[in-house]
Amino acid sequence: MHVPVKNTCSYRVIYGDTDQMGVVYYANYLRWFEKGRSELLRQVGLPYAEIEAGGLHFPVIEVTCHYRQPARYDDTIIIETELAELGRASLSFRYKIHRENKLTAEGITKHACTTSDGRVTRIPDRLAQRLQGSGEGS
Amino acid sequence: MHVPVKNTCSYRVIYGDTDQMGVVYYANYLRWFEKGRSELLRQVGLPYAEIEAGGLHFPVIEVTCHYRQPARYDDTIIIETELAELGRASLSFRYKIHRENKLTAEGITKHACTTSDGRVTRIPDRLAQRLQGSGEGS
Amino acid sequence: MHVPVKNTCSYRVIYGDTDQMGVVYYANYLRWFEKGRSELLRQVGLPYAEIEAGGLHFPVIEVTCHYRQPARYDDTIIIETELAELGRASLSFRYKIHRENKLTAEGITKHACTTSDGRVTRIPDRLAQRLQGSGEGS
Amino acid sequence: MHVPVKNTCSYRVIYGDTDQMGVVYYANYLRWFEKGRSELLRQVGLPYAEIEAGGLHFPVIEVTCHYRQPARYDDTIIIETELAELGRASLSFRYKIHRENKLTAEGITKHACTTSDGRVTRIPDRLAQRLQGSGEGS
Repeated sequence: MHVPVKNTCSYRVIYGDTDQMGVVYYANYLRWFEKGRSELLRQVGLPYAEIEAGGLHFPVIEVTCHYRQPARYDDTIIIETELAELGRASLSFRYKIHRENKLTAEGITKHACTTSDGRVTRIPDRLAQRLQGSGEGS
Repeated sequence: MHVPVKNTCSYRVIYGDTDQMGVVYYANYLRWFEKGRSELLRQVGLPYAEIEAGGLHFPVIEVTCHYRQPARYDDTIIIETELAELGRASLSFRYKIHRENKLTAEGITKHACTTSDGRVTRIPDRLAQRLQGSGEGS
Repeated sequence: MHVPVKNTCSYRVIYGDTDQMGVVYYANYLRWFEKGRSELLRQVGLPYAEIEAGGLHFPVIEVTCHYRQPARYDDTIIIETELAELGRASLSFRYKIHRENKLTAEGITKHACTTSDGRVTRIPDRLAQRLQGSGEGS
Repeated sequence: MHVPVKNTCSYRVIYGDTDQMGVVYYANYLRWFEKGRSELLRQVGLPYAEIEAGGLHFPVIEVTCHYRQPARYDDTIIIETELAELGRASLSFRYKIHRENKLTAEGITKHACTTSDGRVTRIPDRLAQRLQGSGEGS
C-alpha cells in the first residue's frame, strides 16, 4: 500500500532571517526547504543523520524557488514538503511555504544519491519503499 | 552603442559558508548571486543603494541554481554575472560560479521592478539604458 | 508581585547551521539567543514586533558567548532565556543552550533602548514592569 | 625577531547581511571575525586549511563583541585582526571593524588548540613562532 508521503512543519521567522527591505532574505527559504525535507525523512523513518551514517548522501543538484508573497519577522510559516520524483539514483522534493493560508513561496530541490566519496549510486530498495510511503509491514 | 553588460568579481569561502559535508551549503550560492548582481549594478553606474534611494526595488521573484561541483573552505570563487533579460517591469540576471576554471554552479534570478510600497512599475528608461550597456554620452 | 521572567523554547538544528567541523557554526548561537529573547518578550505580552511598532528598539550593544559542548545536526536544543539586568535605558538577557541535559553554550546580550531614529531613551514603565514579571493586575 | 602579527582585510556588505532595522545583523560580525583570523593565519604562512590538514583545530570557546556604530548595506568595512594572547594550548584574537575611519565593532575570540578527535593539545612550537611573527630564518 502506498500512502502519499507528505510532511507539514512550522517555523517562526526571526530577525536574523530578514533583510533591510523588511522581509525574509531570499536565500533563507532554502533553509526552510531543507528543514521540510529533513522532517519528511524523519517522518518516514529515515532520519537524514541515519542515511548519512549508513554511507549515503543526497546532495542538492538543483533548486528552483518562486517567491509569491513576502514572509516577515515573527510570522509563523508552514512548510509543506512532498516527494516529487523518485528516480534510480536521484530524487526530488516539492515545497510550499504558507503564512496564514497565503502562499509565500514554492519550490523544488533535486538531489543525487551518492556514496560518501561522492560517486552517484542507486537508491537502495529499502529507502525507496519508505520514500514512497510503504509501511513496515505492507 | 550597446556594450554587453557583464561583471566578474571574486569571494573567498569562509568556514561559516560550509556545512558538515565539508562543502558550501547550497543556500549560500544565492548570497553570491546577490553579490554578483550588486557589483554589476555598481559597474554600470547604478548602485542598488541609489536605485532604492530613488524609490525603486528589484525583489527576487524566482531563482534557479544548478550545482555542478562543490566549492570548499578557502576556495577563491569567481562570480560572473550578466543581464539575461530586460522586460518592461522585470529583469533577469544569469550567474556562473567558477573555482580554478571549473564550473561550480550556475543560475538565474528573475526580479520585478517595484515601488517602495510594492507595486510593480515600469523600469525607467535611464535605468534600462544603463543595464543594456549604453554609455552616458552614447 | 514579581515573578522571575524566564522562557524556555526549543530548536532543531538543520544542516545549514553546521560547518565542516561537523558542529554548529559559532555565529549561529547568536541566532538562537535572538529566538530566545523574542520568545521571552512574547511570553510577557510584549512581542518585539509590537515594541518596534510603538517606536522603540532594543539594538544589541554587546554579546558574550561561551561554547561548552558542540551542538550537531538534528540535535534538538533547548534555549533558556532570562532577564539578567534592567537599567534605565538598557537591558540584558542571559541564555543557556542545552542538549540532552548537557550545557552546550551560555551567553549574555546587552541592549540599548532607542527610538526609531537611534537616540537612547528611557524604558517606559509599562515595559519595565512586564519585563520584571509584574502581571497586569498586580 | 618578533614582528607584531596583524592583518587588515576588507569586505563589502551585501543585502543578505542586513536585517529589517536596515543594519547588519549582529551575528554576521562573527563571520567577519572568522574572515579576519583566517586571513591573518594565511599571512603568517599558516593557512587554517593546512593547520586542519595537519590534524589540529582551533575551535572557538569564547567570543565577545561590542557593537559601536551600525554597518549598512554596501559599506566597505575594514577588518583588523591581531593575535591577542598565545597560551600553551589556547590562543586569542582581537578584532576591530571600521567603516570610513569610524569604529563599527570590536571583539575577541578565544580558541582552544585541539586534535581532530577534540582533545586539547599543546600548540606546536612551529605554529607558535609563526603566530608571534617570527620569520622563517629568525
